Amino acid sequence: MIEGIQVIGFDADDTLWVNETYFLETEQKLRLLLSPYVDGETVSAELFRTESHNMPLYGYGVRAYILSVLETAIRITEGKVPASILNQIISLGKEQLTKPVELLDGVEETLNALVGRYCLIVVTKGDLLDQEQKLRRSGIEHLFHHVEVMSDKTDREYRSLLKHLDIRPEEFLMIGNSLRSDILPPLALGSYAVHVPYQTTWAHEMVDEPIVDARFHTVDLLWEVISLLP
Amino acid sequence: MIEGIQVIGFDADDTLWVNETYFLETEQKLRLLLSPYVDGETVSAELFRTESHNMPLYGYGVRAYILSVLETAIRITEGKVPASILNQIISLGKEQLTKPVELLDGVEETLNALVGRYCLIVVTKGDLLDQEQKLRRSGIEHLFHHVEVMSDKTDREYRSLLKHLDIRPEEFLMIGNSLRSDILPPLALGSYAVHVPYQTTWAHEMVDEPIVDARFHTVDLLWEVISLLP
Repeated sequence: MIEGIQVIGFDADDTLWVNETYFLETEQKLRLLLSPYVDGETVSAELFRTESHNMPLYGYGVRAYILSVLETAIRITEGKVPASILNQIISLGKEQLTKPVELLDGVEETLNALVGRYCLIVVTKGDLLDQEQKLRRSGIEHLFHHVEVMSDKTDREYRSLLKHLDIRPEEFLMIGNSLRSDILPPLALGSYAVHVPYQTTWAHEMVDEPIVDARFHTVDLLWEVISLLP
Repeated sequence: MIEGIQVIGFDADDTLWVNETYFLETEQKLRLLLSPYVDGETVSAELFRTESHNMPLYGYGVRAYILSVLETAIRITEGKVPASILNQIISLGKEQLTKPVELLDGVEETLNALVGRYCLIVVTKGDLLDQEQKLRRSGIEHLFHHVEVMSDKTDREYRSLLKHLDIRPEEFLMIGNSLRSDILPPLALGSYAVHVPYQTTWAHEMVDEPIVDARFHTVDLLWEVISLLP
């Protein structure tokens, strides 16, 4: 049982709603578009290389992703990719930005069971505008006290979040699908963390070491969080 | 004299540091790159059209801008622009994201005169990551209590800012170069606003009507704000 919690932070992408799946769909379409020039495996590997390299400059989110896709397409085709295909890539990005928000199983039930008993917030990284728009379209915005969009999710950002919330680390519980972004930093600060794995995990979010911490829990479904709280 | 202020919000781009100038430089380079295909006037006009159209989807900032530039370049050359030029456009964006932060005249002196007497915050729109990085590179981060990055600067965002700061409208003063984003919304809520015009104004930020409001002031140089405060 997790006692003494004041604020519960929910990761958004792949915790509250589908996200990584849309990136993978876009990547599949990209592989198809570039298939006359380069094989699919190379497309995916080179795209990941470009994304990782651009991360400090571009950060997270769809706009950053599409810029990296365009750069990759030009580089790996040695400039042979025609402008018409690059234009289709830009359109793929726009499509992804306007996708309907598809809530994951049990999200509404879980939030409804917790609201009023805890202060619920969204803690996410990525495009500020994109995340705000998704929350607005999600139909669950009213259940949250507010949304915190961070440029990254490391110890530093969580530390300033706790300061900003004016609570002690052990009064904060973070719930999310990424061990690297949602679980390890809060645990490092002395907060609680519940991992809800998503079906796919972006390579960038993987961690190697198993986590051993009394404040750490894993559940298969978000709904099970309820049974961890008094 | 403006009495009773608790918090002073400073716009960042073109109020604390040079910004629009860099966009204009990039636009000049773009006109040069596309000069074999389209005349410069058309480039600028069509780019503004694309940007305005994409605004609700992409928001503000360099990444949004470069995506709109790429789209424009492909459209107005009817797909004839080679990938090598599009790659140069992507590089222009990266260059702009890593430009040194050039503080405007009197910024440091003004902040140093106000810090300790008022709670100073940065209130800006654009890329969260880009704005945080610029603030870090600026050398003036320590003078601010914190930074508020908004997806847009309308009445709605300022209203939630005041709520979040837990102050009454008349205890807030906003200082900035954009009448549309920094001046009109705070005035509408009953806050104070000081306009410090920058040498150039992006067409998107222009307003038509003259402003008549007892809580509104205009100064030529940021430093003159000092003389408006007790």
